[in-house]
Amino acid sequence: MSTTAVEVSYRFPPGVDARRQAQAIAVGQTAGSWDERFRHREAQLRGYLAEVVAVEALPDGAHLARVRFPLANVAGEIGSLLTMIFGKYSLAGPAKVVDLRLPADYGLRPKLGLRGIRERLGVQGRPLVMAIFKPALGLSAQDHAEILREVAFAGLDVIKDDEILPDLPEAPTLERLRACRPVIEEAARATGKELLYAVNLSGRADQLLAQARRLVAEGANALLLNVLPYGYAVLEALAADPQIDVPIFAHPALAGALCGAPDYGLDYGVVLGTLMAHAGADAVLYPAHYGSLPFAAATEAQIRDRLRARGVFPVPSAGIHPGVVPRVLADYGPDVVLNAGAGVMDHPQGPAAGVRAFFEALERAVPGEPFRLEELPAGPLRAAVERWGGF
Amino acid sequence: MSTTAVEVSYRFPPGVDARRQAQAIAVGQTAGSWDERFRHREAQLRGYLAEVVAVEALPDGAHLARVRFPLANVAGEIGSLLTMIFGKYSLAGPAKVVDLRLPADYGLRPKLGLRGIRERLGVQGRPLVMAIFKPALGLSAQDHAEILREVAFAGLDVIKDDEILPDLPEAPTLERLRACRPVIEEAARATGKELLYAVNLSGRADQLLAQARRLVAEGANALLLNVLPYGYAVLEALAADPQIDVPIFAHPALAGALCGAPDYGLDYGVVLGTLMAHAGADAVLYPAHYGSLPFAAATEAQIRDRLRARGVFPVPSAGIHPGVVPRVLADYGPDVVLNAGAGVMDHPQGPAAGVRAFFEALERAVPGEPFRLEELPAGPLRAAVERWGGF
Repeated sequence: MSTTAVEVSYRFPPGVDARRQAQAIAVGQTAGSWDERFRHREAQLRGYLAEVVAVEALPDGAHLARVRFPLANVAGEIGSLLTMIFGKYSLAGPAKVVDLRLPADYGLRPKLGLRGIRERLGVQGRPLVMAIFKPALGLSAQDHAEILREVAFAGLDVIKDDEILPDLPEAPTLERLRACRPVIEEAARATGKELLYAVNLSGRADQLLAQARRLVAEGANALLLNVLPYGYAVLEALAADPQIDVPIFAHPALAGALCGAPDYGLDYGVVLGTLMAHAGADAVLYPAHYGSLPFAAATEAQIRDRLRARGVFPVPSAGIHPGVVPRVLADYGPDVVLNAGAGVMDHPQGPAAGVRAFFEALERAVPGEPFRLEELPAGPLRAAVERWGGF
Repeated sequence: MSTTAVEVSYRFPPGVDARRQAQAIAVGQTAGSWDERFRHREAQLRGYLAEVVAVEALPDGAHLARVRFPLANVAGEIGSLLTMIFGKYSLAGPAKVVDLRLPADYGLRPKLGLRGIRERLGVQGRPLVMAIFKPALGLSAQDHAEILREVAFAGLDVIKDDEILPDLPEAPTLERLRACRPVIEEAARATGKELLYAVNLSGRADQLLAQARRLVAEGANALLLNVLPYGYAVLEALAADPQIDVPIFAHPALAGALCGAPDYGLDYGVVLGTLMAHAGADAVLYPAHYGSLPFAAATEAQIRDRLRARGVFPVPSAGIHPGVVPRVLADYGPDVVLNAGAGVMDHPQGPAAGVRAFFEALERAVPGEPFRLEELPAGPLRAAVERWGGF
């Protein structure tokens, strides 16, 4: 990995003159062209040009072009990076950013990350169990506290707001935190560890940053950000703020709009892996391939590896229930957050049983070996496998 | 237009069960499902559900589904709006947001907009002429000032940094402004109007907002923001800040990643029209269909109309040179900013002649009637038409 360059791989679909387009990127997304008036600046200007490193034909007739940009062209954050690698060019026709290699010290690292989150919880050597407040909208602050009570005393590690719950007059964010904070403390005395509650942020950038500080000052011990709807720049501001000394959970909302199309946008691995990991997220949620979302195992693995390489906690989500725990263990080992919505809250015996079913699954699971219903004793895990299956 | 709802049109490609998917959006992107434990909250919860208003088959086998969301589900800004209408669902497979209807008072309006920009310049009844500093990277602050001198004294209305120029140590943003500010003042005394210089913003959200305030305090009279790389939330923060009492020019960098694909993401009209206009931009740049970018005239017209409906200045860009002025006048009338990069800076007789060629074009043009080279007297316009053609 170069320490002075940003290297980008673009895939052009069949029929596109990839070499020509790559060259257009190398010039058009950097210094551009100049005429004789700038001959005296020639050496200087050349230093800002990008370079087409390789163009490779793929079996399906598409082409992969690697372009190397000078690190000096960007400001060390994600905004100018995105503008350089794909800003205006994204408007020029089909092309997809399929890889992005940044110097290791580009951008930010997590303040807490995988290790810091484990330390806060005092939990080592096993996956964390995470749940989501449901229903997503329409509950009062007190409703949240009551749901939290059930799962917190059952030993849950992390809970988050649903990402679609912003700061609404019916259940203001700060009130939800205030209602939940005493429950967290009470449960911590009972369980010996403090559950993390990732409170969802919303508002204009200035309001959102002020809200985050206020929440942390009032005892929030984790935050949730819809990074793409609000902007990587907002995540970076939170991550760089010493007052925000709690982990930031990054949600992938809207990622499909950037990454879903085969010939446009950027790969999921870039948006949810590389960029999140260089923008300072402590934990990143993304679709698991266990569930119903059209997500490939290889894509999931790529995101996982890029996050872990920078100490970020991977949080595969959607389709997570106790029955998939043996698969998750095979794919991830212990360093993973098991994020379940329905898989906790809709357990036939209630949310507390939903949490216990996960812990039972973690105790009994042999990585890669499905649970067999007939071997499970009566209890939360068996009820979960009856409901959602093994894998 | 409803005052209590957000209405979204989704297009699903052939083969997708549009009614089923629209229903999944109406429930899954709002309150979700709930069980008997929440029966006592039933009425409350129902109030947050969205509703599928219509599903319509299109001639190509695709379907259009209209979903109406309660306004109460969102926080009055773009971040929670995007999360609600397309956050998690964007990950679920092919679907495109092709229309978005918001209450008129949703979000922000421009602080200055079309009228305010005209007032600042003292220019009424004709298009504004705008140029871009070129080369984009590699010039010193002093180089910028020298280029500015040429075009400012020729009567240029607006100039902007190239969007890929962030705050770099070789030409810090503040230094560029400080070098250019005296030229602006000197030229204003000569021409009788103050040229607007839209200075490009960069940095983490907190840094960018602080930079914007600092620049304005030091005399910046316009700002440029790459809205999508940095986030609508950043634009909203700038637009809502009373200290930022200068127009904000919104650049469309990265829009193709969200809008280019036929079956994923959001339409250009939503991203560059509706959302920019409700996020507080004063002027919005977007591709013109006159140039080489694959942009349809109908798309351009849609953006134009949505911006103007909220008093935002439309700035069609790319492929703008003096020869297209008759077409632009036919398409836009006088309320348009003619934004030319090469079309000013690469004029055969130099940038000042590039500016004069535009003013000559505005004087001579009959809307919709191409210039005929043989009818043009020698001078900047004729040289421009010789170089770039009529239309």
